[in-house]
Amino acid sequence: VSAVTIHSVSERARAAARLLAPLDTEAKNAALQAIAEEIRARKGEIVAANRTDLDAAASERSSIRDRLKLDDERCEALARAVEDVAALPDPVGTVLRERTLEDGLELTQSRVPLGVVLIVYEARPNVTVDAAVLCVKSGNACILRGSRLAERTNEILLAVMRDALESAGLPADSVQALSTDREELRRVIADPQAADVVVPRGGEELKKMLLAHSKIPVLAAAGGNCHVYVDASADPDKAVAIAVNAKVHRPGVCNAAETLLVHRDREDLVPRLRAALEEQGVEVLEDETAWETEFLDLRMGLRVVDDLDQALDHIARYGTAHSEAIVTEDPAAAKRFTKEVDAAAVYVNASTRFTDGGVYGMGAEMGISTSRLHARGPIGLEELTTTKYVVIGDGHVRR
Amino acid sequence: VSAVTIHSVSERARAAARLLAPLDTEAKNAALQAIAEEIRARKGEIVAANRTDLDAAASERSSIRDRLKLDDERCEALARAVEDVAALPDPVGTVLRERTLEDGLELTQSRVPLGVVLIVYEARPNVTVDAAVLCVKSGNACILRGSRLAERTNEILLAVMRDALESAGLPADSVQALSTDREELRRVIADPQAADVVVPRGGEELKKMLLAHSKIPVLAAAGGNCHVYVDASADPDKAVAIAVNAKVHRPGVCNAAETLLVHRDREDLVPRLRAALEEQGVEVLEDETAWETEFLDLRMGLRVVDDLDQALDHIARYGTAHSEAIVTEDPAAAKRFTKEVDAAAVYVNASTRFTDGGVYGMGAEMGISTSRLHARGPIGLEELTTTKYVVIGDGHVRR
Repeated sequence: VSAVTIHSVSERARAAARLLAPLDTEAKNAALQAIAEEIRARKGEIVAANRTDLDAAASERSSIRDRLKLDDERCEALARAVEDVAALPDPVGTVLRERTLEDGLELTQSRVPLGVVLIVYEARPNVTVDAAVLCVKSGNACILRGSRLAERTNEILLAVMRDALESAGLPADSVQALSTDREELRRVIADPQAADVVVPRGGEELKKMLLAHSKIPVLAAAGGNCHVYVDASADPDKAVAIAVNAKVHRPGVCNAAETLLVHRDREDLVPRLRAALEEQGVEVLEDETAWETEFLDLRMGLRVVDDLDQALDHIARYGTAHSEAIVTEDPAAAKRFTKEVDAAAVYVNASTRFTDGGVYGMGAEMGISTSRLHARGPIGLEELTTTKYVVIGDGHVRR
Repeated sequence: VSAVTIHSVSERARAAARLLAPLDTEAKNAALQAIAEEIRARKGEIVAANRTDLDAAASERSSIRDRLKLDDERCEALARAVEDVAALPDPVGTVLRERTLEDGLELTQSRVPLGVVLIVYEARPNVTVDAAVLCVKSGNACILRGSRLAERTNEILLAVMRDALESAGLPADSVQALSTDREELRRVIADPQAADVVVPRGGEELKKMLLAHSKIPVLAAAGGNCHVYVDASADPDKAVAIAVNAKVHRPGVCNAAETLLVHRDREDLVPRLRAALEEQGVEVLEDETAWETEFLDLRMGLRVVDDLDQALDHIARYGTAHSEAIVTEDPAAAKRFTKEVDAAAVYVNASTRFTDGGVYGMGAEMGISTSRLHARGPIGLEELTTTKYVVIGDGHVRR
């Protein structure tokens, strides 16, 4: 792919973004509805293309092939997910500040689209559609960069979405894709004008590459080295339930817990915690080399700490500021933990697994950010906006 | 300066930030009050150090020496500015979202400090204090990197602030400084852990260096290539007043206008606009090489455009998304302009010069961001925060 092509992908995205930004909610929702219907209408094509990808991926792990798969049922779920996004409130136009300034100048700060969003993701074709419709709903143009494994499926999903957008009177270039060539991605991210933000979804190696080389700001999700801290006053049943859920419910995701911290006064609980975890197939590791590791499978570190302070220090040192939980019946300990732990999400007597845009009532999400700037936690529609001040005067000049 | 020193500056800043984050407003305000009083008490020392800097800067331009100067009166103004920041509302703890989730989980998203803020600025010693107190008020530790020209003044201001912080029971390391060695700055910004954000204030060359080399996110203020567009329906008096004010009021700042766009139907106004500008010493340039230039002095481009669309295209192409103004009596034109112009601030019948944290009612500011991520427009206290979700359960696990 030549530099000319790249230039024109982002130039076309910019042009589309300018047309998308001022659209009203109805126009965007109509386009989303058209996408949902087009997915249903062309289900056969989509499933056939996906079968080609699945055949080519015959040697991959079954978990990867399962993620890759799009059958009739999943196509319908995909169409429904698009309709769910259509039903979400439009963040564009929401007023954040409204003030009357000196001499009657009227100031309004409201949400506007970010512009052009580049999404880099793995072999999950549902992300192709989810990410694109979140962008369109929030008035952003998007550039998709999916995985080679899902190439045929993504190609047809892209065509389906572009046709639907056009039929609804929106620019087809609202949704574009890059090839799966890694060099093309590197060239695109080397140009700070190519997009306004890059959102990586999954793939630690890819994220590291983006953080190291991107001249476009990256809304990064660092891995989640999450902790469950069982305080001196913890209720034993809650402690066991939360520790097991946080580790076992879905061990391969970023909000799964990796280390269990237990207050010395609750050391009596350790055998029960260990037994409950081992019963679910979890290997419990008590040596300190475990503390830095995001296992993302059925292994979990365990450390007995002297007090809340040591737990806070441990989390500050080893945590990745994703999701952290305390189990306690002591309001003062809960208050210190929620105030002093620095993370996107802090839980009291609840599992770290709840960190999720859907659970949080934001509807769909583009991933979970552990960045401190712009968006921290689930990246939903609001997080895909920036703001604009509009100031209305009547010949006002500054004195 | 060795890597060890740099490491420890940011390590000390991190430690201070952990202590600052949970502080209540009263504790932070008391520290700010202590800083104001210490500035007053040690005015003699400050003015003497400043005199040394001024003497060493004898060969500099008078505008630079004027910015550098701190006399008794300016010390008092500085102390009052600190008290003004103390009087501003504390953004930390402000609730942004509050929801009851499934099974009664209680979700709260509220503002928390960003962490460690690195500020890189020019020879304006007032910025040393303004930036530091904005950081302390918003619960952030800061690392100041000032100019060699203000070295002695900054040294004493730093000592004054650190002593006051300590006397108020806050960590002195809440406010630290780097040397003025450019290599030290380059080493610090090469470490993504050294700070959470870099805010450059002034100095295009420095900003370019930061954008090119910083591994820490930069809240950038691109230069301001701002426009005033005189629409077909513009009121002539307002057009002249706004064009002159936007250019002449303070030509050297980023919200000054650089190009005047005039609708062909108001070409009759061009001689009057030109005369009014020339009367104020402005050189009016009608050739297109002027369109890309941020003059920052008494020169201004002028272009007659065919219509609103051509004005919008011009601004999209040459503008830097800072501040853009339309002069019009036509509500439809005003609406299209405010919707379609993509900039931090958009004005209707008002001068671009109003883009300012003080004018916007935000109190003091750290500069004006034209970034699309995190903060767009004046960087006030709220913009120095990120958010944290706190979720309260009672043994909740995810199903």
